[in-house]
Amino acid sequence: MDFSYVSHLSCPKCHQTYHSDQPHHLCTCGSPLLVDYHLDDLRNVLQPKDLSERENSLWRYHELLPVKKKENIVTLGEGMTPLLPMPKLGQDMSISCLLMKDEGLNPTGSFKARGAAVGISKAKELGIQEIAMPTNGNAGAAWSLYAARAGIKATIVMPKDAPTITQTECAVSGAHLSLIDGLISDAGKIVGEEIKKHDLYDASTLKEPYRIEGKKMMGIEIAEQMGWKVPDVILYPTGGGVGLIGIYKALKELQSLGWIDDKLPRLVAVQATGCAPIVEAWKKGKSESCFWSDASTVAFGINVPKALGDFLVLEAIYQTDGCAIAIDDETLLSELQKIAQLEGAFVCPEGAASFAAARLLRENGWIKENDVVVVLNTGAGIKYFDTVRNVLFITK
Amino acid sequence: MDFSYVSHLSCPKCHQTYHSDQPHHLCTCGSPLLVDYHLDDLRNVLQPKDLSERENSLWRYHELLPVKKKENIVTLGEGMTPLLPMPKLGQDMSISCLLMKDEGLNPTGSFKARGAAVGISKAKELGIQEIAMPTNGNAGAAWSLYAARAGIKATIVMPKDAPTITQTECAVSGAHLSLIDGLISDAGKIVGEEIKKHDLYDASTLKEPYRIEGKKMMGIEIAEQMGWKVPDVILYPTGGGVGLIGIYKALKELQSLGWIDDKLPRLVAVQATGCAPIVEAWKKGKSESCFWSDASTVAFGINVPKALGDFLVLEAIYQTDGCAIAIDDETLLSELQKIAQLEGAFVCPEGAASFAAARLLRENGWIKENDVVVVLNTGAGIKYFDTVRNVLFITK
Repeated sequence: MDFSYVSHLSCPKCHQTYHSDQPHHLCTCGSPLLVDYHLDDLRNVLQPKDLSERENSLWRYHELLPVKKKENIVTLGEGMTPLLPMPKLGQDMSISCLLMKDEGLNPTGSFKARGAAVGISKAKELGIQEIAMPTNGNAGAAWSLYAARAGIKATIVMPKDAPTITQTECAVSGAHLSLIDGLISDAGKIVGEEIKKHDLYDASTLKEPYRIEGKKMMGIEIAEQMGWKVPDVILYPTGGGVGLIGIYKALKELQSLGWIDDKLPRLVAVQATGCAPIVEAWKKGKSESCFWSDASTVAFGINVPKALGDFLVLEAIYQTDGCAIAIDDETLLSELQKIAQLEGAFVCPEGAASFAAARLLRENGWIKENDVVVVLNTGAGIKYFDTVRNVLFITK
Repeated sequence: MDFSYVSHLSCPKCHQTYHSDQPHHLCTCGSPLLVDYHLDDLRNVLQPKDLSERENSLWRYHELLPVKKKENIVTLGEGMTPLLPMPKLGQDMSISCLLMKDEGLNPTGSFKARGAAVGISKAKELGIQEIAMPTNGNAGAAWSLYAARAGIKATIVMPKDAPTITQTECAVSGAHLSLIDGLISDAGKIVGEEIKKHDLYDASTLKEPYRIEGKKMMGIEIAEQMGWKVPDVILYPTGGGVGLIGIYKALKELQSLGWIDDKLPRLVAVQATGCAPIVEAWKKGKSESCFWSDASTVAFGINVPKALGDFLVLEAIYQTDGCAIAIDDETLLSELQKIAQLEGAFVCPEGAASFAAARLLRENGWIKENDVVVVLNTGAGIKYFDTVRNVLFITK
């Protein structure tokens, strides 16, 4: 049995294919590339029960990851985060089975560790020596630290308003960190110039095809943790959207393997009212989003005015009869405190937005009382302690 | 088979025993109490192989925990943190097998979650409705959040210089938080008065006997993760010392069960030069420590001038041919950066002190090149980001 069943890269727009043994970024048509696997072969040799005694990280599913040689794995123990019952919060919003997938228990305190672990491992396998990327904070922190572990240099460009903790994580890892006066889209332009100038490996969201493979493991883990069943609804805070795209991709792969049945969960993209391009596109039934001007929200991780993979996010929503919904900052910060006080979980603002979205969707009947609902908390609340501290009026 | 094999509480000084079905704090002789189990019975019914498919948290060892009914468990997914190889750092300090047990991957970002999970679960089982404790930060944060999850009220008293993040965690959980101008020992006096005045449950370090049971699981997990073997050396950052006492207790229990052989790892208590009462006591061959005046270190979690369990820490060191060693702030902050740059791990100052101690002990020959060495990183570096930020001179 091969360690990885990776087959090739393919374009979801024009269906052109590429080898996975050389570095590739976008398709010539401009679309992100996705990773394909030999699922027909794998179906015959691997069963869910084979996983039960495997290591407790996302690498337990190594056949469904793109890294071909085990020795290229760069890991800090990411993945297999807990799926926790939230009974008191569920009761408070009349959802009988409310669960939280807590991504705050990843290295670097956010789900970004998943993408960084797989992205950096594959970069190492491809012989890459230096990466560059723009970030709203957590991705840059994760990629900086995993790059350090791999012995790969990193150049990170971040808005100066991004969480100070994530700036510290980049700097302590030895990455070359630039703080700019602008949004992640402005940071992206600077990174683009640096990449051209110094021939660096572009690790920007969806411009390298492998981070999505790390993030899809959230979907596979949820299925395994529920005994190879899926919930009725999954809510996901959506900025670049890679997590949601990944979860959808994972569920389709599990269907191909015959590990879950035909019914998919309804996928919900949660955004902030201050930056809701996907929500606007979904409301109009469009297949792509428009750039959101003057984007602003305390949920910094979803402050993404235009996602490169917007069409994939919208496809996942349409294909699963899901929806998209925006939450304002005041509502999400109030939900954040309620979650801590009822369930002892200090979630990040993006996670809190997704719980608030579940509450709203239950109120308007889109979620039924007996739906099994999984909310992704994408990171630890402590990474945003200053936001929360201000809300709570803590003074020395 | 019973869910828990708890037997009773016993005093390690005067050997008096107490029931574990009523709330107890210190022995009448003033010593902390320890939890005993029916290990002879358990040996006949549980084998290491029975654990392999159990849940991935410290509750996988529920027979060796004091909670009798499963429904009283209050969990956020604590324990079973990764044991990571640190090959480049090991090479840098000439230790051929250097491993890190990364406690930063616990809920609330530190090993304190272990003690809080078990302590709060047992408090719930005992019918407790309100707890109080002094803290240097992380313990208060963990107990506040687990108490909220259990529906138990919490009063927390903390030095105002403790990490701001941990203050935020207490406040967001709805705990009653007091910030004082003083040390944890001063906070302890205030808590003592509050407990008398309002008849609260004293959750101070070692004044309730159950938090140590959560922390001992670090020892059991290390053994399981190494295939029921133990390393040659374990280094532990030591403030109150509960972690070290717990690991020693765990290893003795595993010996009684016949799950590990007779050889124990040499246990090393790591302190800061600005607060090293255990180190001073060990140097003089004493069985107890003296109060350390003007205690001060950036490794705030080990800024404990006099530990109630000092005699148990010293016993663990003497019984395992271990040692105690102090590291200055400059050295530990320099080690912290080296660890991030070589291994991609952003450890807390206390963890960094323990790596620096391994380096020193290797240099002076106390650790041999081929010793298998496990260092405990007790928390996530991000919880101390402001300390690190200052060292790195990050400015916007």
